[in-house]
Formats: sequence, C-alpha cells, structure tokens
Amino acid sequence: MKTMDDIRELAQQLRVDSIRCSTSAGSGHPTSSMSAADLMAVLLTRHFRYDWQRPDNPANDHLIFSKGHASPLLYSMFKSAGVVSDEELMTKYRRFGSVLEGHPTPALPWVDVATGSLGQGLPDGVGVALAGRYLDALPYRVWVLCGDSEMAEGSMWEALDKAAYYRLGNLTAIVDVNRLGQRGPTELGWDLEAYVKRVEGFGCRAVVVDGHDLGEIDKALGQVIDLDRPTVILARTRKGRGFSEIEDREGWHGRPLPAEMAERAIIELGGERHLTVGSPQPAAGTPRTWPASEVRLPHYEPGAKVATRLAYGQALAAIGARGDIVALDGEVGNSTHSEEFAKKYPERYFEMFIAEQQLVAAAVGLSVRGYVPFASTFAAFFTRAYDFIRMSAISNANIRLCGSHAGVEIGADGPSQMALEDLAMMRAVQGSTVLYPSDATSAAALVRQMAECTGIVYMRTTRGAYPVLYGAEESFPVGGAKCVRSSRDDQVTLVGAGVTLHNCLAAADELKRDGISARVVDMYSVKPIDTQTLLDAAVATRDRMVVVEDHYPAGGIGSAVLEALNDARHPVRVSHLAVRGLPGSGTPAELMRAAGISADHVVEAARKLLAT
Amino acid sequence: MKTMDDIRELAQQLRVDSIRCSTSAGSGHPTSSMSAADLMAVLLTRHFRYDWQRPDNPANDHLIFSKGHASPLLYSMFKSAGVVSDEELMTKYRRFGSVLEGHPTPALPWVDVATGSLGQGLPDGVGVALAGRYLDALPYRVWVLCGDSEMAEGSMWEALDKAAYYRLGNLTAIVDVNRLGQRGPTELGWDLEAYVKRVEGFGCRAVVVDGHDLGEIDKALGQVIDLDRPTVILARTRKGRGFSEIEDREGWHGRPLPAEMAERAIIELGGERHLTVGSPQPAAGTPRTWPASEVRLPHYEPGAKVATRLAYGQALAAIGARGDIVALDGEVGNSTHSEEFAKKYPERYFEMFIAEQQLVAAAVGLSVRGYVPFASTFAAFFTRAYDFIRMSAISNANIRLCGSHAGVEIGADGPSQMALEDLAMMRAVQGSTVLYPSDATSAAALVRQMAECTGIVYMRTTRGAYPVLYGAEESFPVGGAKCVRSSRDDQVTLVGAGVTLHNCLAAADELKRDGISARVVDMYSVKPIDTQTLLDAAVATRDRMVVVEDHYPAGGIGSAVLEALNDARHPVRVSHLAVRGLPGSGTPAELMRAAGISADHVVEAARKLLAT
Repeated sequence: MKTMDDIRELAQQLRVDSIRCSTSAGSGHPTSSMSAADLMAVLLTRHFRYDWQRPDNPANDHLIFSKGHASPLLYSMFKSAGVVSDEELMTKYRRFGSVLEGHPTPALPWVDVATGSLGQGLPDGVGVALAGRYLDALPYRVWVLCGDSEMAEGSMWEALDKAAYYRLGNLTAIVDVNRLGQRGPTELGWDLEAYVKRVEGFGCRAVVVDGHDLGEIDKALGQVIDLDRPTVILARTRKGRGFSEIEDREGWHGRPLPAEMAERAIIELGGERHLTVGSPQPAAGTPRTWPASEVRLPHYEPGAKVATRLAYGQALAAIGARGDIVALDGEVGNSTHSEEFAKKYPERYFEMFIAEQQLVAAAVGLSVRGYVPFASTFAAFFTRAYDFIRMSAISNANIRLCGSHAGVEIGADGPSQMALEDLAMMRAVQGSTVLYPSDATSAAALVRQMAECTGIVYMRTTRGAYPVLYGAEESFPVGGAKCVRSSRDDQVTLVGAGVTLHNCLAAADELKRDGISARVVDMYSVKPIDTQTLLDAAVATRDRMVVVEDHYPAGGIGSAVLEALNDARHPVRVSHLAVRGLPGSGTPAELMRAAGISADHVVEAARKLLAT
Repeated sequence: MKTMDDIRELAQQLRVDSIRCSTSAGSGHPTSSMSAADLMAVLLTRHFRYDWQRPDNPANDHLIFSKGHASPLLYSMFKSAGVVSDEELMTKYRRFGSVLEGHPTPALPWVDVATGSLGQGLPDGVGVALAGRYLDALPYRVWVLCGDSEMAEGSMWEALDKAAYYRLGNLTAIVDVNRLGQRGPTELGWDLEAYVKRVEGFGCRAVVVDGHDLGEIDKALGQVIDLDRPTVILARTRKGRGFSEIEDREGWHGRPLPAEMAERAIIELGGERHLTVGSPQPAAGTPRTWPASEVRLPHYEPGAKVATRLAYGQALAAIGARGDIVALDGEVGNSTHSEEFAKKYPERYFEMFIAEQQLVAAAVGLSVRGYVPFASTFAAFFTRAYDFIRMSAISNANIRLCGSHAGVEIGADGPSQMALEDLAMMRAVQGSTVLYPSDATSAAALVRQMAECTGIVYMRTTRGAYPVLYGAEESFPVGGAKCVRSSRDDQVTLVGAGVTLHNCLAAADELKRDGISARVVDMYSVKPIDTQTLLDAAVATRDRMVVVEDHYPAGGIGSAVLEALNDARHPVRVSHLAVRGLPGSGTPAELMRAAGISADHVVEAARKLLAT
C-alpha cells in the first residue's frame, strides 16, 4: 500500500506521460487524461486488485475506460504497472502496427473491450459484473472510468438501470466530471447535484468527490465494497489539471501539446518520473463450475410445420446442457423463443427488458469472462444496437445474436417490426457470420455451431411455421449451402433462404409441371457464403439464376451472391427478387406477393431467364 | 367542452372499438389500448387543440403514440373525431393495402411519425417541440403517449434530457404505467415514485395521476400550459382496463380477444357506441417567417487542398440563407464543421450533445414541421441511430445526415472512430440517397441539392484535405457520376469515391507512365448510382474495371457497382479493393496501404486485369 505522497507522485507521472506520449505521437487526448489522473493513481495503487503478470487470472478486478480517448492515461498506467516500457509508450503510441492504439482494444491483454465510441464501456462493464455476481461467483470488482460528456448517451442510463436492477454491488462507475466536452461545456457542467439526482433516481449509490483530493478519492473507493447497489463516483475534476496554461480551458480537447508547451508542462508537473507501482493482489479464487451434460438437439419430423424461431429457442435450451451457455433477451423471449432456455436455465438467463444496446453490451461483457452468450430480440431491433455490434467486432468479442420476425413475412404488424436491412447491416461487420436457416432442423444444427463460432455471429429466424425440410442426419456446416433439389437436367437455379426457400420450392414444383427442372439452393449461410455451390449451379444451369430474398435489395443475399461470383471470377447476371418498396400490413402471402418475392414471382423470373 | 359523463362514455367507446377492430383483424394490442383509453378520452375532448378538418393547420397540437402498438386506441380516437368511419376501422385495420396499419404511419394525415419501434416517439416529439418553441414560435403543444416498458430504452432519457435542456414546456409525455410488458411485469411495475425520481432527476416536471380517474387526468392535463419545463404525466393504469376477465392479467399482450370473449367484454363495457366528439380548436396563428436570401455557395480553387467535411460546413452555412434550413450536431461540430452554420445561424442550430439517437429523432421532428434539417456527427456514430434512421424512412421523413471521418483514412484514432459499415447501412435504407463527394466543389454542390431531396439523404465526408478537382462551372446531379479522366484509348476503368478517387487519379498517372490510359470515374452518388456511366466505361474498357473503397467489402461501393451492372444485364467481373481486415492506428497512407486500397494497389489491380 503506497503512501499518499507516493500516489501524488504517481498521478503526476501519469500526467507527464500522457503529455509525453501524445506529443510524441502528434495526436491524442492529454487533457482528458490529466483530469482523471488522480482518480486512477489512487485506484491503481490501493483498490484495483490485479495480477499484472497474469491478466487471465479469473480473480482479477476489471478496469474499463469507457472514455476510451483517455488512452494516454490508461497506457501510462500500464507503464507504471511495469507491463509497458517507457520507450514503447513514447515510440509506439498511435503508431502503425502498434497495440497501443488511439483508443484501447483487447489487442492489449489488460484491456477487456474496445472503447472509443462513447457510452459503451459502462454497458459492457455491466455484462462483466453480471458474470462476476451470477456466474463466476467471484468477488472481483468492475471499475469503469466514464467521461461526463458520455452521460448524455441513453445507453449509460440503460446500463445504470440494469446495474441497479441486478444489484451489481461489484460495479463502480467513476465519472470524470471535467465539465468540458469536445467543442465546449457539457450540458450539466459541474452541477454534480444534477448527476446525483439522476444516478440515485436510477437506483444506484452516488458519491461526490473532489477528483483531485487523493484522500477523498481513497475514502470513496474504499467504501464501494460489498454493497448490493452499484456505486457511481461523481468526481469534480479540471480538464488539463496540473498545467496552468490549459487547465479548465476550452479549445484543448483532443489536442496534443506542441513540444515547447509540453516541456513547460512537464516542468510545472515536477518533471519526468519512472515509478513502477504495484496493485493489490486479487484474492485467490476460482470461478464456479457449471455442470455440463451431453447436448441432445431437438428432432423435427420432415414435413411438420415448425417456425425456425421456435427451433432456435428449443436448440438453445438443448445446448444449455453445456454449462457455459448464457442467454439474454430484450423482453420478447416469448416471441424469439429464448424463453425455452430461460425456463430450463433461469440462473443463466438475463432479462434485459427493452434496452437493445444494453442487451448486446451485456453479451460482450459476459464473453469477456469466457461465457458463450446468445442474445435475441426482433431482428429489426438489432438496428438499435448497431454501434455496439460494430464495436464488438473491434473488441474481438465472441457473441451470438438471434433476430426473429424478419422481413415482410411477419405480416400484419407492419414495417416497423420487419427486419429488411439486417442482412446488409450484419454482413458489413468485420469478421461476422450471418446465418439464415429455412427449417427447424437446420436452425437447430446451426444454433449448436454458433456456440463454437468466434466473432459476431448472427442468425435470422422467421415468424411463421414452415415445413421441416431436412432429416436429423443432415449436416449444415457454417459456410455451406444445400442443394435441396438438383438433377442433371437442371435448367435454372433458384436461390433462397429462410421463407423464400419455401417459395423457391413451390416455384420448382410449378416449373416441374411445365417440364422445367430447377435446382434449388438453400443459402442458409449468407456469410461466409458457399461460392462453390453457387458456381456449380451457375455452370450446370448455364448462368440462369434467380435469387429471392425477404430483404431490401441493397446489401442482402443478392449482393452476397453477386460478390461471391465476382470474387470467383465468374460474373453471372442474376434475376434478383427483393423487397423494393415500403411495405405495409397484410398477410404474409399478400405482402410477399406485393413485394414480388412470392413463388409465382420466382416462376415468372425463371421463365424469363429461360426465354432469353 | 364535454362533461365528464360524456368523456366516460367516450373512453368506453374507445375500449370497445379497440377490442372490436383487433378481434376483427385477428391481431393487434387491445389491452395496451384499454389501459390508456381514459387518458386519451380526456386529452382528445378537452386539451388536444386540433382542427380535424385541417391536419395541416400549423397551429394544431401534435399527438404522437410512442407506444405505437396501441394503434387500436389511436384509430378509435380517429373514429370518434369523425375522420375514420366505423366500417373502415372494422374492415381495414391491419389489412393489406390499408392506411390503418398495425403500427401508425404518416400514411394517415393525422400521424406525424411512424412508431412501433419503442422509444422513438418521445425523441421525435422533442424535435416537433423544438420547432414549436424556437422556429414556428407558435403555442401548439406536443403530446406523446408513452408505454412504461419503453422507459427502459436509453433514448427516452436522451429525449427527456434534451427536453429539459431546451426548456420545452410545450412538450407533455403521458406514460401509461400499466405495469405489464410483453412477456411479464416491467422492471419498475407500479413504483410510480421511482419514475418520478428519474423524471425529476432529468429536469422535467413529474405529475402522478390515477390513469382511470377522469377528474385527476383532466386536472393534470390542464396544468401543463405555459411552463418552462416539459411535463411527464405518470399515470397508474391497468392493462385491459374495463374487462374483468383480463384486466391486469399477464398473458394478454398483443393478443386480440377471441370473438366470444370480445362479446362479453363489449357487454361489460356497456355495448357499442358511435359518439363523435370534437376537440378544442387551435388558436389561430401562423409560423414565424424566417428571412431568406440568395444562396451563394463557397468557391474552391482547383488544386487547393480542402477537406470535404469543411466544404460541408461552409456549404451548409451558405444554404442557410434559405430560411428553412436547420442544423444539429452530436457535439462534434468542430470536426464535422457544422459549426460554420452554428456561428452564422445560431438560432437555427441545435446542439444535441453526445446523443446520436436524439440527434436523428430531432431532425425527424423538425421535418414534421416542414423544416429542412441537416444532422451531423462522425459517420461511425450514425450506427448508433440506425433504428431511428430505418424508422425515419417509414415516417417518410425528409432528413439529411452528414457523417464525417469515414474509413481508415482518419488515421491514428483507430477503428472505433472509422466508419467502415456506413455505406452498406445507409444503402440498405428504403428510398435513401447516399452521396460521397471527393472534393470540396462537388461536396458543396451536393449539400445544396440535399436540401431539395426527399427521404433519407446521407453524405459521407472525409477527414483529410485533398485537392479540389472541379471548377465552379461543373454540376453534380444526384444519381450522376463524373468521368474525371477519359479518352478514346482507355484500357481500364478505375472507380473510386471520396479519398479513393484521389488514389485512382494517382494510379492513373502511374499507369500513364507505362502508356496505359485509364478511365477514372468519380462515383459521388453511391445511391442512386449512375448505371449508364458504369456501362459506358465497362464497354469502352472491355469490362476491365477496378472498384476501390475505404469501407468493408460487403454492401458498399463494390456491391453497388455489381448490383447496378447486374440490373443493367451487363455483369462484369470487377477487381474489388476494400478494407478486409480489422484496421488499427497509423497514418492515413499507412492504413490505406495496409488495407490494400492505396494508389499502388489500384495500379497493381489494373495491371492484373490488363494481363489477363
């Protein structure tokens, strides 16, 4: 345990190093680092229980910089902990190829999640704290450094709401209220009482401190233990603290100090230091072990009508036999059918109510601790969390998302509930996997594989019940496709997925009556896509291909097919049926007909291709 | 002014009609309608100042159903106001082709915005109230009926925060606290005090009422006038109120009553009624007129280096001469350069701080009143508002979004700040326009046209300064493209937009040194796309085409080009350069090189095409 004088020295070192590394890099946020240096110096040396040599020690506390732009401060802390050298900090920060990126990412072993899009670190921290309290059953704490500007993001309030609801006494948010945002004063400035009212209104414990009084900080951080309520420390600070020329001044956000100013600042701060400090060791402890047993997937009889969303829920409940699966939902578990899991494994199910950003963030946080999260809501409502999904990819998080009620097929509820952009959105995410099963057997098989996938994995399910197409003996590798119908005489290829595969099958039957043999491809893996099956089909049917999807035309399955054939250097002109206008209410059949994606439209498109 | 007995009758009629229309449709949310029927009966008859014969009367109050699933109640109100017939309600609700959709949309003249994705109506209402208070300067009020479940959405708190910040005394949220969500109890149940604390913490006035006591409701609604603070009426209600078999019971969300139950309910509610009631007339008034003068776009000298984001800001300030332009930003106006407008027209600029959902929603609300909103933030952060953007399209809103700092070109800040999915995301939106200028002249010209566009219009701008390519005499129609280099001898086509166009030009110079003539196409309009220019180029260069973009590969410019050529029945195998891995920090040049989208890569791709 360091003395207050030691800690004061450390805080100045963190400031000096924040200035040095950002000036050296020519960019970065020194002033946003300096305001929080005292807070972090006290935390690091006295309260953050962390085994710096074993970042994978499950008993470690967690530290998340929700204000990710304060990376100079975070990396300076790493230097003071002895895990990053001064030279590295001065020569690698923000440089090409370095893990000391402009905003923190888990390329560094001491970083849990990528931050830099504000309002995400705290929601992620809620997920880690859920794991600590309800799954690991370990006494580690989750500390999140937040900016005051980001308290304007609704997601921060989703996080505090859920933190209080789940009584996450292991979570402490430290808000660096330096009153200055990027372009000027924040909404609430130094009105700490306004923050207190909000925080308490949301059911959390609020503690106001002078963020530059080490003793006050120490006392506040020491009081967060063993409470049933999350704590929010509201620290009144001054941006650029410690350098009189810029302290509490506007116009210095995100600007490194010019070299000669940096020199003056370092002198005023007492010069360079190279202290190495320890952190308290975590208490020894191992996470609770969840009993695991053999997974038995549900069996579906070919021909029976089963909705893929139901198969999702049933398969999720089945793979729950693995002890590491957790599920979350946005208050629509009786629609997505995640309730099947919730009923069987209530202790591994987290209801996130109608807060899709927190839904995804909690999944990310749970994945930090090695759990295998499945989060579900209506597919349309994952658009609410797109920034979180995008950032999850940068976090290298392994999360599984299931969106039900896709496309015009949902019927009478109308366009607000229809996912018609989700495939484009999810395909664009770096390293993502996008699945869209057409029947219950393949849905269940894919759910099982989702648990093994890395990265962001998305499954789109369908509202209505359609015939089971496959027997239990079939396999559905991610990246594959199925030729549901094929013969040596195929004249045209019909590509569908989800509900449109059934339309393709009906179309094939109709074409058959005219003596036309159609190959039908089930594109259940939209990304990665099975290029070979597409190529074979194109060659076999002389480049006559119809692609039909219950999605807007840009960026969905049609684009995926065109991209794949293009990458394979075999460009094909496909007849692309998609939802082109704004749909309204109606029956699924009426709406698919109006959108031009019905079986009749597939038949018509195929005939046109054959006529030319 | 109706008597309380009349209003009680009306409330029962609204309940009966909500039951009748949803039972007749076979789907819908009668119980969520019944809980709010008393609230709406009092509002409609005594406080909602509305000229039902003239929905375009600018002095009209506004009513937004943030809980859009209570559409049976809303449409039953329309019947009681005499603008929808009983027959229409009973035979058209949720039917194909009808404007009485499952969730309200502005296909109905009395509906301002589409709702149904929860947590959006209130943020939209903030935009309408901003228009009322600061632009129209009319005393109309904005009433928003909210569900209690949707109070879990962070966006609701972004809305209340901004409503208080902008002192929107003309805004009243009425929260129907019926304690039951879709699958069970809400987080806070009937803990009205918890809601009060939150609402007051966020700076709004909270009023608790018994939502079934007409007198209490009337008193509360009558007290909302002329305050400088928004009001939130927290109404304790019972879901399914009035029919004892289901009142306050779980399991009845989103379920119409079976016919025989509906009969019993109607009897218990006193039978069918067909009252037609009036609403108070709005005070006469016309909106403030904003002085307009001639627009003079900034002029840029070809060859000078100017960032397109700066041109955006300067052009926005220039078109501000039109009195109807308003601008908003997410606290990064000094980066997006919307501050140029803010300095010139502070009274038509709204700072939304770091709350991108509210940023977009405010734009939607302002467009309801006919203003021409431009909302800007970092392009990456529009992912935060994707659900709002998607819903804006259903609202038929006319909004303009500008996202700066696109792609790896931003450099050292790293991937959290890099928009690499935005083109896919925005292209997928129904009826959207997507623009991506490469130089200041075209950026300014396109900003001017954005003001004339309908629907969702998105412009992507670039962080760095690149040479001005075009003189003031050039025109840039939306849907067009520019051949920046072309000759009769062109052997290969290089397609770029934004920063990659400059890479294409450098590549063309390099190829020229080898005696290879390259056509360079500036694809400044990504959607709609100029298919003819692509086709001409493909034909002229014998289908040798390189497309290079600072975006992930799925759904961006590459896909747009493939889709366009496919739709034109001229499939071409394009060499597609895009960002395929996860980028880190570095200089723009380093990162573009690492991503394979530099000028050298374009040269290499072109040479490969020519060698085959």
